[in-house]
Amino acid sequence: MSNDAYSEGDLRKTGMALKHDREWDYELDRIVDAIEERDATTVGLQFPEGLKRRAPAVADDLRALTEDVTFMISGQPCYGACDLDTFLMRRSDVFVHFGHSPMKESEKIIYVPLFSNVDPFPILEDAVDELQEGEVGLVTTAQHMNRFGEMVDWLEERGYEVQTRRGDERLTHEGQVLGCNYASADLPADQVLYVGGGKFHPLGLAMEHPEKTVVIADPVNNVVTIADTEKFMKQRFGAVHRAMDARTWGVIFCTKIGQGRWEQAEKILSENDDAYLVTMDEVTPDRLRNFDFDAFVNTGCPRITTDDGPRFHKPMLTPGEYEIAVGNKPLEELSFDTFHGTW
Amino acid sequence: MSNDAYSEGDLRKTGMALKHDREWDYELDRIVDAIEERDATTVGLQFPEGLKRRAPAVADDLRALTEDVTFMISGQPCYGACDLDTFLMRRSDVFVHFGHSPMKESEKIIYVPLFSNVDPFPILEDAVDELQEGEVGLVTTAQHMNRFGEMVDWLEERGYEVQTRRGDERLTHEGQVLGCNYASADLPADQVLYVGGGKFHPLGLAMEHPEKTVVIADPVNNVVTIADTEKFMKQRFGAVHRAMDARTWGVIFCTKIGQGRWEQAEKILSENDDAYLVTMDEVTPDRLRNFDFDAFVNTGCPRITTDDGPRFHKPMLTPGEYEIAVGNKPLEELSFDTFHGTW
Repeated sequence: MSNDAYSEGDLRKTGMALKHDREWDYELDRIVDAIEERDATTVGLQFPEGLKRRAPAVADDLRALTEDVTFMISGQPCYGACDLDTFLMRRSDVFVHFGHSPMKESEKIIYVPLFSNVDPFPILEDAVDELQEGEVGLVTTAQHMNRFGEMVDWLEERGYEVQTRRGDERLTHEGQVLGCNYASADLPADQVLYVGGGKFHPLGLAMEHPEKTVVIADPVNNVVTIADTEKFMKQRFGAVHRAMDARTWGVIFCTKIGQGRWEQAEKILSENDDAYLVTMDEVTPDRLRNFDFDAFVNTGCPRITTDDGPRFHKPMLTPGEYEIAVGNKPLEELSFDTFHGTW
Repeated sequence: MSNDAYSEGDLRKTGMALKHDREWDYELDRIVDAIEERDATTVGLQFPEGLKRRAPAVADDLRALTEDVTFMISGQPCYGACDLDTFLMRRSDVFVHFGHSPMKESEKIIYVPLFSNVDPFPILEDAVDELQEGEVGLVTTAQHMNRFGEMVDWLEERGYEVQTRRGDERLTHEGQVLGCNYASADLPADQVLYVGGGKFHPLGLAMEHPEKTVVIADPVNNVVTIADTEKFMKQRFGAVHRAMDARTWGVIFCTKIGQGRWEQAEKILSENDDAYLVTMDEVTPDRLRNFDFDAFVNTGCPRITTDDGPRFHKPMLTPGEYEIAVGNKPLEELSFDTFHGTW
C-alpha cells in the first residue's frame, strides 16, 4: 500500500493507528512459559501494522526474561488474522501472533489478543441518542471483546433488548465481527450497534445488512456516526459496469491462510476460456499492473476488492460481481462479498 | 514498488520493458513433454515483471497442446532468479520459471531462459569507439548469453584480446553477471564491455570494479554509455552518515531463496543489543514504514539497499556500510555489496 493513497480499509486510519497511546497487555508471562516449556531457542513475533512500532520494546522485555533465545520480528504485512507469517512460524520454535483471534490452531502458535483499554462507555452514552428504543444488535471487534459482556449489561440497564450471537465457525467470540464476516449481526433487530475504531468493519457490516441501521460508536476517535454505503455502492456498480466489456479476466487466488476459495476460482475458470488463474499472497495494484487482463475477479480477501478497488488499473470485482458482469446474474443481485464458514 | 517512483534498479526501465516487441522462444515442447511425462494436472508458470503480460498467451498455447491441465500463473513479484514462487511450486506438478537461470534445482522446476533475439552487433560497432586497444573483459546478462560466443569472436576479429570467465558457483554461464554478482568481471583487463539492457547490472558492475572502465553497449535501447558511479557513491555515503546517529537498528533477513545471509544477520545481532531481527520476503518502503527503527541494515538483496535506498523512510545500509556506520570500519572501506558463492 503506497504512502500517499490510504484507502478506506487501511488500518492506519482506524483505531489501530493508536490515536490514544494505549497500553496493551502483551501477556509476556504466557510467552515466557511457552518458551521454557518447549526449550525454545527461536521465537517469532508478529504484530499488526499499527503495533509494529512496539515490536522492539516487546522483544527487549522478552530478552530480559529469557536466555539464549533469538527473537525474530515478522516484517510481513499484517492487517488481520489471515496474515499469519507461515514462513516465520515454520522457522520458530514458538510463534506469537499479536492482536487477532486464531485463524489456524497449532501447538506452536500463541495468540495474544491485545484488548483495548479504552473505556467504551462514554461513547455509548452518545450512541444511544441515535438508537431507537427496543431491539438492538450488538457487535464489536476482537480488541474490544473483553468489555462485551459489560456493554450488553449497560444497554440492558437502559431498557434495550440486546441481541447477540456468535457468528459462524470463522469467528471466535460471541458478538465478534471480522472485516470479511458479519455473521454475528444476523439478528432480527432492525438496528445494530457497532462498537469499535475505524470505518473498515462497520462499512462492511452495513453492506452485508443493507436493511439495518448501523450505528457506529468509535471509542478510539470518540465519534458516533451512521454507516453510509451509498458512495460505496456507486463505486461497486461503476466497477461492474466497466468490467462488462472485459474479454480477458485474471482470476486471483490468494495463497494466504483463510483466503483460498479454490472452488470459486475453479468454477470461473471452468466456465470461461478467457479467464486465467493468478496466484499470489499480497494482492496489490503494483503486483497486477504488469498483467494485461481487461478485468480481475478476486476470490481472496473481499476487503481488498471493495476497499482498494479503485486503486487497481483495471476493474477488480468480487466473485458475485463477476457473475453480474458476465451476465450470469442480474444487476440487482449485487451484494457485499463475505467469507462464511471455515477455510 | 509504487507506480510513480521507479528506481534505478527497476527492471521496467531496462530491456525487460520490451521497447522492442521481441519474440521469445518459450520452449513449449519441452514444457509439454514434462507435463506428459509426469502426468501433471497442475502447472505453475512464473514470468519476470516485463513478461507477465505475455502469460495468458503462453497459457493459451499450452492449453491447446494439453488436456485436463490447470495452468496457474504466479502473481508474485519477479525481478530475478531469487524470486522463485515456492508456494506455487509446491502446489504444482510441474513448475516453469521463465527468463532467469536456475537458482534452485529441482525435478519439478523447468527453467526456460528466454534469450533475446535483438542483434547485438550494430551496437558493438558503436561500443568499440569507447574501448582502448588490447585487453577487454566481456560480460552480459542471461538473456544475451546465446550470442556470447559470437560476441567474443567478433571482438577478437577486430584485434581485441578478449578475457572472459565463469564467475563463481552462483553463476550458470561463462561471462554472465547477476544484479548481485559480478565475479565474471574479475579479470586482469582495465576495461570491461557489458552487453545488455538497462542500468541495473552495469552500475553494480562499475561499483564492484571501480578501477575499471565499464563500457555499456545496450542493444535494446541502442545506446553506448560509460558507467558513472559518482552520484551513486554520494548517495551511499549520505546514507552511512545519516545512520551514524542511529541507536536502534532493524536487521533485515530476507526469506527468499538465495538471499538469506543468516550468519551476517546473526553477527550483527550478537554484537549490538539495539539491533532487532526483522524477517520478510519482499523488502519495500511500505512494509518498513510502521517500524520505529532509526536505521536498517539489509542482509538480503543488495540491489534493494542501493537502488531503492532513497525511498525508505530511514537510512537503509548494506552489511558493509553498517560496519562503517557503527564505527567498526573506516569510511574508506565503503564498497559495493555483492553475493558470492552459493546460498
